[in-house]
Amino acid sequence: MAACIFCKIVKGLLFESDKILAFLDIQPLSKGHALVIPKHHGEKLVDIPDDVLAEILPVVKKLATASGAENYNVLQNNGRLAHQEVGHVHFHMIPKPNETEGLEIGWPAGPTDMEALKKLHADLKAKM
Amino acid sequence: MAACIFCKIVKGLLFESDKILAFLDIQPLSKGHALVIPKHHGEKLVDIPDDVLAEILPVVKKLATASGAENYNVLQNNGRLAHQEVGHVHFHMIPKPNETEGLEIGWPAGPTDMEALKKLHADLKAKM
Repeated sequence: MAACIFCKIVKGLLFESDKILAFLDIQPLSKGHALVIPKHHGEKLVDIPDDVLAEILPVVKKLATASGAENYNVLQNNGRLAHQEVGHVHFHMIPKPNETEGLEIGWPAGPTDMEALKKLHADLKAKM
Repeated sequence: MAACIFCKIVKGLLFESDKILAFLDIQPLSKGHALVIPKHHGEKLVDIPDDVLAEILPVVKKLATASGAENYNVLQNNGRLAHQEVGHVHFHMIPKPNETEGLEIGWPAGPTDMEALKKLHADLKAKM
């Protein structure tokens, strides 16, 4: 935790509550690109208590409203393979003002295999 | 709302509560790709009441845990320009098992302009 950059942030805040902080990303993909983090240290979404998670999206909503963005992406990455670069859960609110600024998304969807989905559904439902 | 595909979903659910539904994406980017939606109809994040937003991420966490994914992305798109294709708020939980499956992200960050960020910070903070 001593090496966690988000744990060191004490100024430049846009929002602070008991459990949550929000601030601007200093390497923005677009104007208004901001981050919402839990104060609770955890690397991935599954490491954050539900009562803390409950307070995150209302703050993302505040950022989206304040930015005035009509188009925007909310993104939270878990693990290096999934593009996570800081090991403390953070939600990006990234305005998408035009095709070239903001988040770029690739969507490599394959064909739909309904049988496989049915089987997976039963498997996951048992684990929920 | 009559044309909203998510409003019509009544089976294949992985989770249901008073306010939330979760189910598998039928055009998955990877095995376990699932969606969490509020029952409250709204097109974008800012259209969803805070008490509903509060219940979304704990369900995303359940999906992530059930999937067993080590790497995964949580994504919610707002507006056509931001890749939203169904006009009812939905959160994707997309496992990232390897480089080729799952979400692809492009990150066109520009140089950091601290003066512009300071000005923007003051502007946004006043609106939060």
